[in-house]
Amino acid sequence: MNFKLVFKLTGKVLLVEAAAMLFPLFVALLYREDPRPFLYTIPLLLAAGTLLSLLRPKDKEHFYAREGFFSVGLIWLLISAFGALPFMFCGAFPSYIDCFFECVSGFTTTGASVLPEVEVLNHSILFWRSFTHWLGGMGVLVLTIALLPSLGRRTLHLMKAESPGPIVSKLVPKTSQSSKILYAIYCVLTLLQILCLRLAGMPLFDSIVNSFATAGTGGFAIKNTSIGAYGSPAIEIIITIFMLLFSINFALYFLVLCGKWRQALKSDELRFFLCVVAGSILLITINLAAASPAFFTSLGDTVRHAAFQVASIISTTGFSSVDFDLWPEFSRYILVLLMFIGACAGSTGGGLKCSRVLLLFRCLGREIGHIIHPRRVNVVKLDGHTVEEESLRSVLIFFSAYMPITFLAGMLVSIDDFSFGTTFTAVVSCIGNVGPGLELVGPMGNYSIFSGLSTFVLSMCMIIGRLEVIPVLVLFNRHAWRRS
Amino acid sequence: MNFKLVFKLTGKVLLVEAAAMLFPLFVALLYREDPRPFLYTIPLLLAAGTLLSLLRPKDKEHFYAREGFFSVGLIWLLISAFGALPFMFCGAFPSYIDCFFECVSGFTTTGASVLPEVEVLNHSILFWRSFTHWLGGMGVLVLTIALLPSLGRRTLHLMKAESPGPIVSKLVPKTSQSSKILYAIYCVLTLLQILCLRLAGMPLFDSIVNSFATAGTGGFAIKNTSIGAYGSPAIEIIITIFMLLFSINFALYFLVLCGKWRQALKSDELRFFLCVVAGSILLITINLAAASPAFFTSLGDTVRHAAFQVASIISTTGFSSVDFDLWPEFSRYILVLLMFIGACAGSTGGGLKCSRVLLLFRCLGREIGHIIHPRRVNVVKLDGHTVEEESLRSVLIFFSAYMPITFLAGMLVSIDDFSFGTTFTAVVSCIGNVGPGLELVGPMGNYSIFSGLSTFVLSMCMIIGRLEVIPVLVLFNRHAWRRS
Repeated sequence: MNFKLVFKLTGKVLLVEAAAMLFPLFVALLYREDPRPFLYTIPLLLAAGTLLSLLRPKDKEHFYAREGFFSVGLIWLLISAFGALPFMFCGAFPSYIDCFFECVSGFTTTGASVLPEVEVLNHSILFWRSFTHWLGGMGVLVLTIALLPSLGRRTLHLMKAESPGPIVSKLVPKTSQSSKILYAIYCVLTLLQILCLRLAGMPLFDSIVNSFATAGTGGFAIKNTSIGAYGSPAIEIIITIFMLLFSINFALYFLVLCGKWRQALKSDELRFFLCVVAGSILLITINLAAASPAFFTSLGDTVRHAAFQVASIISTTGFSSVDFDLWPEFSRYILVLLMFIGACAGSTGGGLKCSRVLLLFRCLGREIGHIIHPRRVNVVKLDGHTVEEESLRSVLIFFSAYMPITFLAGMLVSIDDFSFGTTFTAVVSCIGNVGPGLELVGPMGNYSIFSGLSTFVLSMCMIIGRLEVIPVLVLFNRHAWRRS
Repeated sequence: MNFKLVFKLTGKVLLVEAAAMLFPLFVALLYREDPRPFLYTIPLLLAAGTLLSLLRPKDKEHFYAREGFFSVGLIWLLISAFGALPFMFCGAFPSYIDCFFECVSGFTTTGASVLPEVEVLNHSILFWRSFTHWLGGMGVLVLTIALLPSLGRRTLHLMKAESPGPIVSKLVPKTSQSSKILYAIYCVLTLLQILCLRLAGMPLFDSIVNSFATAGTGGFAIKNTSIGAYGSPAIEIIITIFMLLFSINFALYFLVLCGKWRQALKSDELRFFLCVVAGSILLITINLAAASPAFFTSLGDTVRHAAFQVASIISTTGFSSVDFDLWPEFSRYILVLLMFIGACAGSTGGGLKCSRVLLLFRCLGREIGHIIHPRRVNVVKLDGHTVEEESLRSVLIFFSAYMPITFLAGMLVSIDDFSFGTTFTAVVSCIGNVGPGLELVGPMGNYSIFSGLSTFVLSMCMIIGRLEVIPVLVLFNRHAWRRS
């Protein structure tokens, strides 16, 4: 392991985090709030970042997959550890582990909160909380790659380790160029959402932070009852649309920008995603409308709330417009399934990713086909192209790691002795980077109920989910810590 | 698809089932109970069986994997459909679908019951119920192969399709010979258990049916409070030991019989199984002892009940000595994990099987190892031998089919609007062929709460779990129904 190079890279990312913290500091000064949480943290970040950046690695070229995975795991742990400091200094959180949870929840775009009453926080802390979503959504490393030109040819391993989805596609040959294009799309969409929310009557500050939370598919709300607090159908519809937009593979937007509309619309993953969304909305609408007494007075309201919750969960944002934990079990169960499925690869969303689920089903179909027609050559295709066996194997391996981790993490959380529904959906929601689960961690609940151990386990789940398992396993493998 | 040959084989199995029904008929006559449930069913079985057996397939050699899987799926559906008739004729069940569920639960060795009060059944029906466990445990087909010499070289495909576990090992070159050896071991162990239970003071009838239910790792109890009803520590200990014995790969007993003690004890799967059992008992004992007030007065009682429940669930038997649904969530959660893991391959138990779980973990370890040392050749080993990539792939595929089926079946069951814990653990328990779940389907609950749709879905889950997914998927694939 080329530790010096890994640490140097980590230092650079910490410097970028210090720079990012200037924004909430500015908000604090603007609203005449206490700037100390940031004034204390920024120098610490600068010191740590500068120290690490000064390292002079002997070998600048030795940077392979393991260094990539190791760096990404380490960086996400460290930026969360430092990012939690403003929460601690502001005094609204009971302990550092809670601050760490909240910050991990922010960077991993989960949106699970330990705060029973989020409205006690001031503007600058709320801003930082939502800003972590926005930074984490596209990946702090992708941002670093976009900003710093000097990272050279190491960037592909980093992108691979951090990018969500089974197959990494570079938009253009140079990775740093790709990152810039992605960030440009991301910024434009975010600005568009801020504009739409303003036009729908949401205050400017709320529009900005809610757009950050939507863009990163995070879901930290700044009201105790999430988006439902605004009581505005227009706002709910706008956020529904943008949650869906941010859970689509950004490479498709690039195709659209290049004028390749048709190719974008032919994406198998997009079609699968839209089918799942439409199917879920339909089933939940029927379920809610058939309940007696019906949950909403009009069909329009039913569809709107069904669509909002489906978009919120499959995009792994986690906003809520109503308390869906009160819905019938069928609707709640569908939402739990959506937590597993998650958004499209190459988006800011979490979960298993639609393309993986699709490939999983196609692998199964091939297996059955092989038994029925043993002599026929069976290949699995995606978007008309044959998927390599290596990619299929990694999909199967990913799934086979994701589920056991979910179940084993649940075992540790179950020590807190909450119901099976609470325990299991808390873990599913955290590893899928969703936010709310069912029962005590439902949309009106929060994660303050858990012990320190569970809070830590759930924090790790969020990082494991966001980094797609492998980097965290590499980071905690003793062989990885040996010098090469 | 060689339909005529498949149907002919099915006919033979139905004739074997008719013969098996003579035993409960004899019990009915012995206890002077109404013999009509069996007197009505046996002629029906004979008629259907004879009709199908009379088929004259043109091609007797065309019998490959797809015919094997197809036959197995069809046969299990049909023997359950016919086996349910005595339950319907006895009048204790509300509907045919409930009878079908009960019979599927019997043959698949699940042991889930739709009866709130099992003690209302008479001896002959109770005997048939438990006898289906014993027949299903080793596989009705393996029995047929052992009994009928004329099946020829088709038997391997049948054994492959029905045998639990990732790798089919023939004990001796001839399949029918292997089946006979397996059934001999099975019978001896069953007789041994009957003897032990008699010596511990259990009435003869109870000893026999409880031994059937243990041997098949089924778990149909003949008392409303399962094994706890006897209130005898000796009986609980005996059953604990036999539940564990029946969840070990029978090939190991064959090794022991051949004097290869050491090789048997070196089995990786056996070691993994024993570690999981010991670890679970330890953790549950600590959890129960640490609760206040403690669940049992003495440490001995705590260990005994922890061991009983752990053995019961990991062997997928499903007996209970106490209502473990009242235990703390940590203990309950461990039991749910054990439902997934299940017994060893080549035993009568269900679940994913220990060897698969072990191979899954080793695959993951190899993946991490490959990232850290990309140039090192990594192979996955089991019992010192390299496992073929094809076998590893099938383990991954199996896992990737098992989990989605569990989740999707849960969606259908959730329409009944029970809690997440009830819904999810009912499905996990049924697909793992365990029996009890948590909450409403806990050891003191039963499956009568579910609607017809859920009862059917759960029946299918039991068959899917027992036949290890693939045969049922082949049976319901429209391509499989085409003539070749």
